Amino acid sequence: METEVTLIEVAPRDGFQSVKEMITTSDKLAIIAALARAGLQHIEVGSFVSPKAIAQMADIAPVLQGVAQLPQSFECIVLVPNRRGAQLATEHVCQRLNFVFSASETHNLNNVNKTLSQSLAELRQVQSVVERSERLSLRVSLATSFDCPFSGKVNAQHTLALFQQVLDISPDAQLALCDTTGRAHPFAVRSLFERALALIAKPEQLIFHCHDTYGLAIANVAAAFEVGVRSFDTAVAGFGGCPFAPGASGNVATEDVVYFFESAGISTGVDSEKLKEAIALAEQIKGAQLGGSIRLLNRSKREASADA
Amino acid sequence: METEVTLIEVAPRDGFQSVKEMITTSDKLAIIAALARAGLQHIEVGSFVSPKAIAQMADIAPVLQGVAQLPQSFECIVLVPNRRGAQLATEHVCQRLNFVFSASETHNLNNVNKTLSQSLAELRQVQSVVERSERLSLRVSLATSFDCPFSGKVNAQHTLALFQQVLDISPDAQLALCDTTGRAHPFAVRSLFERALALIAKPEQLIFHCHDTYGLAIANVAAAFEVGVRSFDTAVAGFGGCPFAPGASGNVATEDVVYFFESAGISTGVDSEKLKEAIALAEQIKGAQLGGSIRLLNRSKREASADA
Repeated sequence: METEVTLIEVAPRDGFQSVKEMITTSDKLAIIAALARAGLQHIEVGSFVSPKAIAQMADIAPVLQGVAQLPQSFECIVLVPNRRGAQLATEHVCQRLNFVFSASETHNLNNVNKTLSQSLAELRQVQSVVERSERLSLRVSLATSFDCPFSGKVNAQHTLALFQQVLDISPDAQLALCDTTGRAHPFAVRSLFERALALIAKPEQLIFHCHDTYGLAIANVAAAFEVGVRSFDTAVAGFGGCPFAPGASGNVATEDVVYFFESAGISTGVDSEKLKEAIALAEQIKGAQLGGSIRLLNRSKREASADA
Repeated sequence: METEVTLIEVAPRDGFQSVKEMITTSDKLAIIAALARAGLQHIEVGSFVSPKAIAQMADIAPVLQGVAQLPQSFECIVLVPNRRGAQLATEHVCQRLNFVFSASETHNLNNVNKTLSQSLAELRQVQSVVERSERLSLRVSLATSFDCPFSGKVNAQHTLALFQQVLDISPDAQLALCDTTGRAHPFAVRSLFERALALIAKPEQLIFHCHDTYGLAIANVAAAFEVGVRSFDTAVAGFGGCPFAPGASGNVATEDVVYFFESAGISTGVDSEKLKEAIALAEQIKGAQLGGSIRLLNRSKREASADA
């Protein structure tokens, strides 16, 4: 059966990178394998960033080698912050590069030390790397598309203008609008995606990446779905946390999004029962900041039945 | 300024009743007073039920005496399960009775040992008590309007037929449709409220009572608001838990709903800063099952700044 919505699992990148304690490559691969067994067909497994910037991602090469040997196949995505990262990725087995920069110039300068023009120039180079490769596809993620931790609300017109500039450079790329701070409101999500959908040829190019920091993630997923978005970034067990408030919720939990869609009869291709194995593995990661309502509920049910 | 949405605080009833350890009357009154200071204009302070059924509500009389002496005024609501409870309420200072029964007959039999016909007959008696009183208004809450813990999904047509029967008996009452299990889906919420709104004279009669057990509460509040619902039951600190899974989330958190509306510029009349006092008091209640995203975020921020 064809799935009606596509979930892109990002815990192994956006989740793991927030953990200070080093996660072993084999622990990473065990979670990735469990996610694939649960039916996730798109998994962002790590990033080609400087180990000086994010030490947790230093084992991306052995992670990719391990992924290539897994019995389950899925689209293997790696984040690249620049042309150099993209070039490194060509030497490994992966299917899609995720080039990230920020709609907020302040955040972009802070995060990757580039102006927006410089990031667009970098995108052109990443796009060339992808064009020269036979097997790579591209995704571009616009961080802080709604709200910036430094400068607050991001103007929708500004985000859409940048979105169009990205499309002009990479017309076939997937495009993700990211609520990095979790402060996007469902009304703003609906409105921005309606306008973004009007700019692109294929709705399936568009992805919503959201965080549950303020408890709005599922409402935001619902709002985006209602206007036609069909692809969502999610992280098993709500893995990720919030860099601005340790202990707070991070990425929207994969199992919560699966529950949201499947309970309305909308197929995600993900098996909630099999997903529990990946959740259990995530819970064993030392220093993991986890979230998610379904996980809490299931844990409570288990404790209640153990008490009884 | 007139508020655009009305929040009805239910922690002192729906929240407290789930706590096994007895909460002292003065602790109850301290939270009620803090809620009133934060701007909550409608507070359900307890219920006239048999202390054998719910021992936590045995001090309803002293609670009402205490409420009458608070400097802040608000609409004081008490739950009554039957005519006898309503009669008892007339001897105390309160403004509104909340008569509750279940849309699911199985749940109703289990909860109040009555068939739906018997509950409608009881409603007629409660309605008479209210009509004979000069100061009492009525609210009727239909528990399990969407979903029943025993029999699963409740047919919308059945709920609406019952809703109409309630309206025929009590045309001026407020009517709450309650998602008791937290399993209502935003699509179902939207649809049921659209149809309920078509049956009533004044939209302000209609109330949505929801639980966050599966993480859908804010999405459900958003869905109900979009079709025109303007009154919502909420519980400070997500006080309440889930009787089917101890430790799981209970009522939707007042502060989460305040954040949801106020961040979109929709006024609730509640002061989030002052609400923190009530949250802190709730956190001190022994045995309290709390939830809510904003509370978790604020606690994480406090811990992060204490570490720094």
